[in-house]
Amino acid sequence: MSKKFKKSKRDVILEEAAKLFKERGYGGTSMRDLAEKVGMEAPSMYNHIRSKDEILEIICFHIANSYVSQLTRIESSEDSFTDKLKALIKLHIKMMIEDGAAVSVANNDWKFLPEDKLKEFKEIRRGYEKRFAAILEQGVAAGEFHNVNISVSLFTILSAVRWVELWYRPNRGVSAKALEETIITILLNGLSKQE
Amino acid sequence: MSKKFKKSKRDVILEEAAKLFKERGYGGTSMRDLAEKVGMEAPSMYNHIRSKDEILEIICFHIANSYVSQLTRIESSEDSFTDKLKALIKLHIKMMIEDGAAVSVANNDWKFLPEDKLKEFKEIRRGYEKRFAAILEQGVAAGEFHNVNISVSLFTILSAVRWVELWYRPNRGVSAKALEETIITILLNGLSKQE
Repeated sequence: MSKKFKKSKRDVILEEAAKLFKERGYGGTSMRDLAEKVGMEAPSMYNHIRSKDEILEIICFHIANSYVSQLTRIESSEDSFTDKLKALIKLHIKMMIEDGAAVSVANNDWKFLPEDKLKEFKEIRRGYEKRFAAILEQGVAAGEFHNVNISVSLFTILSAVRWVELWYRPNRGVSAKALEETIITILLNGLSKQE
Repeated sequence: MSKKFKKSKRDVILEEAAKLFKERGYGGTSMRDLAEKVGMEAPSMYNHIRSKDEILEIICFHIANSYVSQLTRIESSEDSFTDKLKALIKLHIKMMIEDGAAVSVANNDWKFLPEDKLKEFKEIRRGYEKRFAAILEQGVAAGEFHNVNISVSLFTILSAVRWVELWYRPNRGVSAKALEETIITILLNGLSKQE
């Protein structure tokens, strides 16, 4: 029981930290701000978490590992490359809607990781991008996708979903479903009706 | 002659300022850094430009007005909405390739404009987005485009080209032509070959 309680306090701290980092930037957030936000005294907060560095590290690697494990699942399916790409786009949208603040931290504040962790993080990201690109390449080779430049396609897709993190709020009159459908239509079928 | 010389010095100052703002951020760049970069003494630089604020204002409004005047030209053509959209996407890519640092400043540092200018800048940008959205809407109504959510489409398109500013360098093995072709293929026809 006590262990469970601790875990949940820790999760609250991580969640609020992600929100503060997103709002004020990693550099602009102090442990004192965080303690205030979660309604704890700083010393008791340190029972759950060692430092601001540690928080950043946990958030960045949690998000990176989440993307990687879901990519592994998608890669290993028997689906067409088209369906794999759809699943990847949905994954990015879902992560941004459900865990927006943490994704934002992993996208923007990773550069403040300590050097060894920074290197590790960059390697994970690079590996993810390579495996994403491989799905595009295989889809082109299989004749499922147009014969596009792979790295341009990869960055175009990743950027096309990226604004969701910065802009999308469910109360702005666009449902998560409409969002997903439109983005998938554009990236898979294009805006234009004629081929 | 003397006037022409002055104008060209001013252009050099604006160009180097845009590069410095992009590199170090608006807040992280001093007029002293800029003077050093353009190889002038600060007092003589002030013969050409009044302040850092003025530089930011000139860059932001130059870029915003450029986009708007080219949008006006595209709107007034007799082309299909598909061709208008292609022209708009090409415009964004071209601006980022040819004037990347200034576009980056207008995209990221506009928030440091003084209040009255900030308001004006936001209005121009909002007007641009509305008119861009209108082309999408008209294209849907005319049966040229899929029946997509307009604001999601607008942000997806604007973001899909945005990474070019952050990543694209002509020496990275992708030509400007390949870049343009792939982005237009994805946004207009989609990656997938089957409808």
